[in-house]
Amino acid sequence: MKAAILNIGTELLMGMTVNTNSAYLSEGLSAAGVFVYYHVVVGDNQERIIEAINDYLPKVDVIVTTGGLGPTLDDITKEASAQALGLEMVYHPEVFEGIVERFKKFNRPMTDNNKRQAYFPADALILKNPHGTAPGCIASSGDKTIIMLPGPPRELIPMFDNEVMPWITEKNRTHMKSVFIKLFGIGESSAEAAIMDLIEGQTNPTIASYVKNGEVMLRVTASAGSPDPLDSMLEPTVQAVRERLGDYVYAKENVGLEEVVVNLLREKGLTISLAESCTGGMIAQMLTSVAGSSEVLDRSLVTYSNRAKVELLGVLEETLSSYGAVSRATALEMVDGLEERTGSDVCIAVTGIAGPGGGTEEKPVGTVFISVRLKSAHAKEEFLEAGFESGLGNGIAEGAEGGIEESLVFCKAFRFSGDRERIRLTTAMNALDLVRRLLK
Amino acid sequence: MKAAILNIGTELLMGMTVNTNSAYLSEGLSAAGVFVYYHVVVGDNQERIIEAINDYLPKVDVIVTTGGLGPTLDDITKEASAQALGLEMVYHPEVFEGIVERFKKFNRPMTDNNKRQAYFPADALILKNPHGTAPGCIASSGDKTIIMLPGPPRELIPMFDNEVMPWITEKNRTHMKSVFIKLFGIGESSAEAAIMDLIEGQTNPTIASYVKNGEVMLRVTASAGSPDPLDSMLEPTVQAVRERLGDYVYAKENVGLEEVVVNLLREKGLTISLAESCTGGMIAQMLTSVAGSSEVLDRSLVTYSNRAKVELLGVLEETLSSYGAVSRATALEMVDGLEERTGSDVCIAVTGIAGPGGGTEEKPVGTVFISVRLKSAHAKEEFLEAGFESGLGNGIAEGAEGGIEESLVFCKAFRFSGDRERIRLTTAMNALDLVRRLLK
Repeated sequence: MKAAILNIGTELLMGMTVNTNSAYLSEGLSAAGVFVYYHVVVGDNQERIIEAINDYLPKVDVIVTTGGLGPTLDDITKEASAQALGLEMVYHPEVFEGIVERFKKFNRPMTDNNKRQAYFPADALILKNPHGTAPGCIASSGDKTIIMLPGPPRELIPMFDNEVMPWITEKNRTHMKSVFIKLFGIGESSAEAAIMDLIEGQTNPTIASYVKNGEVMLRVTASAGSPDPLDSMLEPTVQAVRERLGDYVYAKENVGLEEVVVNLLREKGLTISLAESCTGGMIAQMLTSVAGSSEVLDRSLVTYSNRAKVELLGVLEETLSSYGAVSRATALEMVDGLEERTGSDVCIAVTGIAGPGGGTEEKPVGTVFISVRLKSAHAKEEFLEAGFESGLGNGIAEGAEGGIEESLVFCKAFRFSGDRERIRLTTAMNALDLVRRLLK
Repeated sequence: MKAAILNIGTELLMGMTVNTNSAYLSEGLSAAGVFVYYHVVVGDNQERIIEAINDYLPKVDVIVTTGGLGPTLDDITKEASAQALGLEMVYHPEVFEGIVERFKKFNRPMTDNNKRQAYFPADALILKNPHGTAPGCIASSGDKTIIMLPGPPRELIPMFDNEVMPWITEKNRTHMKSVFIKLFGIGESSAEAAIMDLIEGQTNPTIASYVKNGEVMLRVTASAGSPDPLDSMLEPTVQAVRERLGDYVYAKENVGLEEVVVNLLREKGLTISLAESCTGGMIAQMLTSVAGSSEVLDRSLVTYSNRAKVELLGVLEETLSSYGAVSRATALEMVDGLEERTGSDVCIAVTGIAGPGGGTEEKPVGTVFISVRLKSAHAKEEFLEAGFESGLGNGIAEGAEGGIEESLVFCKAFRFSGDRERIRLTTAMNALDLVRRLLK
């Protein structure tokens, strides 16, 4: 089944409202195995609404409209749809009584034009609207269907979930399932190059890639006439992708790196503390966005000033004056001081130049040092052997130090690009990714 | 000038990504006096991209596309546009060299398919992309133009603002200017009610209101045939709105509360330190997102565990066991300990229950305490007199204490609604708003 979503609303075309409805509907339709081929937005304009319905109805099986069901003269979705489907408009007195009741209940005066909301294309299935006055409907003619929903999300969402989805699931015989594979430390083009033959060789399941906030996500999607074979259709492709991309894969579902790290720490019963300079609390904020993070996060010291680095972490004044606050030496003293004071199993310190000011020729904006101390017992064997130097993704490894007091210490230098927010986010993500890669 | 926006990306049709690009572009185009008639989304599908360009090009003067400029086989926006405009594709070696440079700079391997990004429709104006590899372009033929932009917002937004908007403004003869008035502590309907007569009585300038992340923003927009009269057209309306909404207005431009607070502290030469529990570093992260925040922020102690509250802030074990970590007593000891250790001019502590777990009947999820210590010399006279109790926006004021060591101490209890992220964000925003309101 192919579908188009037609949103009606001038506020969308003015950029006053972000179109969350189309994303919501698309997600539901895709999950039900419907192929959404188009999103179209037009204003509250009779001519363009009719034009859009007439343009897209030949191309798809179903158009889902949002908006234009209200009582005003602008609201002509039902009339335009009836016309496109070749149906009469029919008055439903029981619907009108419901509208009258609703106005009474809320003690609001009802204007005559509300009667328009009780007209529907002939033989339409009427969709109740417990959250507003305008009911929706599903009207069909031959093999074409138009599903009309109200515009406000609080009316649309329950109507779609409770009335439209069951209708769709019964009509549509294609079932779909997707597996999301999340990657970090590799760019989209390199990731695609590594699996190009898989992408090109397959039609079911399909593989698609997306980039967001420096992460690459792959989606593997299978479709079939029943839900039963979907898992076994997906498995070989997912397995092949994982083998090709190895350690870049950090999750096999649509979750963030912070969630993976919190869950990894919880599973292992480990605690974490942070000392953040350039990220200014961002890493802590990401970790604490995960419910249950209080089990693993002891503290984060946002030591923005030099004084705070000295007082809270015991960084030496000499280190700051000789090497600077953004240096390997400072990053290592930060993480040493943090472990000494907290005894946390995992300690991370970051210091860097997020810009726009503060860069020098030797240390341009984007220079970042991330140091880690990790109780040896919890580190992956390969890192113990290699002194943490191998397998640590992109960036310039600057060196490593061996175990002091049974902890491994590691400092890595990076040079990130982008604006202040980008550099901070990339730093935070890389710090989280380091934890993920180092833990057993 | 009439425009259509064509977003290319299967992820939009699958509902994985909300289409914020079309709202952003629409807002800018509308502000420049362009009438946006259509938004259309199609997937990374050659046939449907070409079809969409051919369908809409006759209906409008300009199509703005987003996405499909990358190196992969999917990325065919430029080819499809060239075809629709009847133009050849031309190779630009200097663009290719720039891409090669970029890969070198970041020390990443370049794959052959990146060469595709250096081909453009003949005579196109090439739009630089400092935030990614794929440049955009503006291609015209006769009176039809296609403006091609990359999909990721961090690449699209600067390219649109810095290169496309000046081009549009020159082509289009309607000049528009908007003033943004940002509000905190008042809901959209109350704000609208306070200025309803202004909204209804005006056609130029117009007033529109938007809600985002708990803040209300008003946009006052004037249009004229030349830019000269715009300021004097806007001024009386902006002034009238400010008078009506008083202290709820925190900025007369489109900036965040964190920027206003950092600038206020910088102007006054004050320092700030934070002790964050439920916000987990979010307030520090917001402040440090502002360039130059290092002048004012000393440190933030993300004391997530009870141990960290005791060790870093000197909160008493008895206080934690008698009153709980989320209590007025703990919030006050946190802020007292913070000032004692940092001597910062402004100290803020927050503790609360962000959920989903941890709520009780007495202290449900959403219970938050925000405490402030402020050197008396810097506080507004009205708060000195009232012991900080007046004028502090919504929420339940729980009490106030008078000056100790010439600092004023204040603790306010809130009960916020929403999910974990919402409660954390509302807490952070209210903490920042408290600082804004308390300072002279």
